Amino acid sequence: MARTAAPKEKGKRRRDHPPALRELLRVPGGEPVDLSSYDSRAVPGGPADKAAGLAATARLAERLAGLQDRLYAASTAGDPRRLLLVLQGMDTSGKGGTVKHVIGHFNPAGCRVRAFKTPTARERSHPFLWRVRRALPEPGEIGIFDRSHYEDVLIARVRELVPRAELDRRYGEINLFERSLAETGTTVVKVFLHLGHDEQRARLLARLDNPDKHWKFSPADIDDRALWPAYRKAYELALERCSTGTAPWYLVPADRKWYRNWAISALLLEHLEALDPVYPKAGFDVGEARDRLLKMP
Amino acid sequence: MARTAAPKEKGKRRRDHPPALRELLRVPGGEPVDLSSYDSRAVPGGPADKAAGLAATARLAERLAGLQDRLYAASTAGDPRRLLLVLQGMDTSGKGGTVKHVIGHFNPAGCRVRAFKTPTARERSHPFLWRVRRALPEPGEIGIFDRSHYEDVLIARVRELVPRAELDRRYGEINLFERSLAETGTTVVKVFLHLGHDEQRARLLARLDNPDKHWKFSPADIDDRALWPAYRKAYELALERCSTGTAPWYLVPADRKWYRNWAISALLLEHLEALDPVYPKAGFDVGEARDRLLKMP
Repeated sequence: MARTAAPKEKGKRRRDHPPALRELLRVPGGEPVDLSSYDSRAVPGGPADKAAGLAATARLAERLAGLQDRLYAASTAGDPRRLLLVLQGMDTSGKGGTVKHVIGHFNPAGCRVRAFKTPTARERSHPFLWRVRRALPEPGEIGIFDRSHYEDVLIARVRELVPRAELDRRYGEINLFERSLAETGTTVVKVFLHLGHDEQRARLLARLDNPDKHWKFSPADIDDRALWPAYRKAYELALERCSTGTAPWYLVPADRKWYRNWAISALLLEHLEALDPVYPKAGFDVGEARDRLLKMP
Repeated sequence: MARTAAPKEKGKRRRDHPPALRELLRVPGGEPVDLSSYDSRAVPGGPADKAAGLAATARLAERLAGLQDRLYAASTAGDPRRLLLVLQGMDTSGKGGTVKHVIGHFNPAGCRVRAFKTPTARERSHPFLWRVRRALPEPGEIGIFDRSHYEDVLIARVRELVPRAELDRRYGEINLFERSLAETGTTVVKVFLHLGHDEQRARLLARLDNPDKHWKFSPADIDDRALWPAYRKAYELALERCSTGTAPWYLVPADRKWYRNWAISALLLEHLEALDPVYPKAGFDVGEARDRLLKMP
């Protein structure tokens, strides 16, 4: 586990998250991935326990909100940069929970959340990246994809929705697409929520036991669970082939919700701090504006 | 000031907001409005002071989040209902602050925030409602307009951007548009943030005194301030002509930020409680699903 000191992490800030969590959680691309070698209950680089995790996440939230404000402000002066968080993982792995508990701390004015469901007839009539391109964040915004174009190499592989040759071309197409995003100012943060097989059963049962959550459940979720090994293989391939230098995958153990929220907050913070957006200087004469205001009735 | 008991406000809940704040803040339509008769520092129906206001708003936030969850859940079973919050008011009246501090308590997955700025060339090439129609909330969502189609009878009137005859037709067109929204399941909550003339000067000066906020300031804001009487007249006309039975205007005194956040939270709560969305019943056999899950490895 490579641990290198992040230049911006000094003094008391260091307690909230370790130096370069992104080095710790990053999936090395180009080599086979074996998900069974990652413990879904682990808390790599994380706070000591749940209480410490919740407190650290709350502190991170304040810093995230400040950086978001700077990112948005910078865009008003022409800074093209933005951030796109891609969330992938099996049913109940916490994609929706992350949106609620992590993204919920940002100013909603600067967030663009999009959940990708089964493609509509119209979406299917277009190339698979079409619907994704229409949901990208604008400069200064934080975009969030709850599922994404990766569904087109995940469920599409497991359910054999497209010919194998086309499927295999998609990985390269995705890499080119994500590189083009990076080149036009989008920092892409891809998070795979690594959920344990047993934990999924517990969470699905919990949904069944709560009538207020039945709407989140579908018998198709059980069909998908029966295909768990095929999904794991599909995720391993996506991680191997699409964890690139410009858009790496981060593997976040997801059995502990407090760790998941903390880790994603910390990852976002590291990326936003690296961007280091600055408030634009005034494009007008501040003293003159002040004088005018004071002279008016 | 009409105060009628809201049916759902009982017991301890009554402490957080008075019965039917919407009756208290509603602008009577069809009759002349004189904004100078409304005190922008007032706190009608509100908590006793700032501390009580902040605490009450926090309690409202929890209930709002619960209602939003039910609204969204209901939409997955075909309930077409949704809510649209329209925010209007002079510069610094707190439109952005409302998004941050009130809408920030909702789950971002179910919110669709849109700020309307000076129309682009493409937007100007379409009828004035075109860009607004493209930003409407879907079923189950809460839409938020920071400025709106009302700009087309506000700045358009003050700056004489369109012929007077066309301008006068727009009020009726807006009323028909909003009625069509109501008929297709959208509850429209229109809030006019009533800011005092002196308070605006103080807020504009505060922006000038903080370099991190210079990006929010434009010398054009001072030009608009110079046109304050014309804007007031334009707002009075919009309130008079467009406070309708299906989509009334609410006048929220906006000099005290804590009151503004509390009042808008309470207004949203009253409207969501009136909708009373329900979690959908399971469309599958829960016991069977449970058995299948438990029998799987």
